[in-house]
Amino acid sequence: MPTWSNGFAAIDWGSTARRVYLIDAVGHVSSHMEDEVGTLSVPQGSFEAEVEALRAPIGDLPLLLAGMVGSNRGWIEAPYVPCPATLADVAGRLLWVDQGRTAIVPGISFLKDDRADVMRGEEVQVFGAKKLQPSPGRMLICHPGTHTKWIEVEDESIMRFQTVMTGELFALLRTHSILTDVLAAPVVSGPAFLQGVRRGFDKSALGADLFSVRANVILGVSPSEDAPSYASGLLIGSDLRTGLRNASPHDDIVVLGRGLLTSLYAAAIDHIGFRGREISGTRAFVAGICAIAEIVA
Amino acid sequence: MPTWSNGFAAIDWGSTARRVYLIDAVGHVSSHMEDEVGTLSVPQGSFEAEVEALRAPIGDLPLLLAGMVGSNRGWIEAPYVPCPATLADVAGRLLWVDQGRTAIVPGISFLKDDRADVMRGEEVQVFGAKKLQPSPGRMLICHPGTHTKWIEVEDESIMRFQTVMTGELFALLRTHSILTDVLAAPVVSGPAFLQGVRRGFDKSALGADLFSVRANVILGVSPSEDAPSYASGLLIGSDLRTGLRNASPHDDIVVLGRGLLTSLYAAAIDHIGFRGREISGTRAFVAGICAIAEIVA
Repeated sequence: MPTWSNGFAAIDWGSTARRVYLIDAVGHVSSHMEDEVGTLSVPQGSFEAEVEALRAPIGDLPLLLAGMVGSNRGWIEAPYVPCPATLADVAGRLLWVDQGRTAIVPGISFLKDDRADVMRGEEVQVFGAKKLQPSPGRMLICHPGTHTKWIEVEDESIMRFQTVMTGELFALLRTHSILTDVLAAPVVSGPAFLQGVRRGFDKSALGADLFSVRANVILGVSPSEDAPSYASGLLIGSDLRTGLRNASPHDDIVVLGRGLLTSLYAAAIDHIGFRGREISGTRAFVAGICAIAEIVA
Repeated sequence: MPTWSNGFAAIDWGSTARRVYLIDAVGHVSSHMEDEVGTLSVPQGSFEAEVEALRAPIGDLPLLLAGMVGSNRGWIEAPYVPCPATLADVAGRLLWVDQGRTAIVPGISFLKDDRADVMRGEEVQVFGAKKLQPSPGRMLICHPGTHTKWIEVEDESIMRFQTVMTGELFALLRTHSILTDVLAAPVVSGPAFLQGVRRGFDKSALGADLFSVRANVILGVSPSEDAPSYASGLLIGSDLRTGLRNASPHDDIVVLGRGLLTSLYAAAIDHIGFRGREISGTRAFVAGICAIAEIVA
């Protein structure tokens, strides 16, 4: 059995991408690799070979895997830990594929008030963000993505969360819809985006407002190059309407993620008068997975 | 030049289907053909040949075309008539491809209060519905479809309308999304559908509620065979929230269309306490196109 005293490896393995971290004995990332071999592109039955191939160059270190790799479309299904869930709950429910050597971090489920929800992978970042910036009381975390998560943390527990399929809706509209030809240009965080955010947040007519993106271009109401930014703003504004419905402008809102999408959410949150601060999803993942490793080592 | 006294032909030609009607001198349909040769499946430059092929078996009668055939992706673009628009306005703005022989009915545009919208084809049905069931004052018409239209008619004029891309969103989710595998079963108008309608109408969290459809199945909250009906209900309920926002339960609401989708909308409108009555889209189209023919003959 490998020993944790030489460090360990971690894989954040989602549907469309994976990130591999080699973490030394004092919790620093000594090497980092990422590619687009998401769980959806690994044939059933091939996960074990994929994992061994990833492990080969790093030696026989303990390995923790998180994300969709633990779903029913991944390697082995790791049953959800129900809310409220602490870091210790999750660490105590690792699915050991190979005792002491290879484990999958379970996702978290929410089920209350006739509402069901699930997450896999974001929980590691959430616990990591809490380690990076400890604050007493309540923290509202926004994790933008294909499926944006709004997560309420109280003290050490994930109490509840809600998923909004904003990123996926935008991708569907951009790729397969009647809006495809007007959504080709890049999204930029400017006036058109913020105008969309305001409308999406104030109104609740997403299906109508999205069609208006096309009508605006046809009737010459707004320049076609603004259409993607405005449409993205509509979707993100509508998302904020859901995610911030119980929040107050004084709340501590953390936007947890990477790249353009995270900046767009931070700008949108600011525009509607709330205070958001960004935390790197990569840093948070490493902090969270190290905290889990500390418990199980 | 052909004479109208022997009757005429009409084509209701949308993006994905076309319906051809041969109408006799007294306004009865003497023959009717429909197929799935929508404008999207006709290559640019081939419309004239398509039209001549349709005309060949019926002789040299006048021909009126309506729908997306008059769009920038159709045969020839017929400029929109702005709201408020009457039947006479539309008849007066026919685009004559071949004077006295072949004309395209223009669509209608709406532009006011920072909102733009367009329609092509539904206007013929709307004017026809008004002819079939004349009623003084205001009529609210719901035309369900890929792009559902909510149309306000006052006396003889289409005053304003709004498009909600309900049908297209459902098709995108069913075909290309993470919900694809839970949305395969048929939609039925039962308790799951009505539960979705109620939630979609009351809440304004479509992006979140749609994701919950998957979470409900994963966590065993609701049977997977209910998922498509519930999801359809969410989308239609959200659509009604937009379309009925200025309506009162006493308003005369006409649901204009064909088949299952029209029945679903009628059931949904009834469920949330409004009064809807169905009018056949086919009958309304024939009544509307005959009224246009009367003006131009």
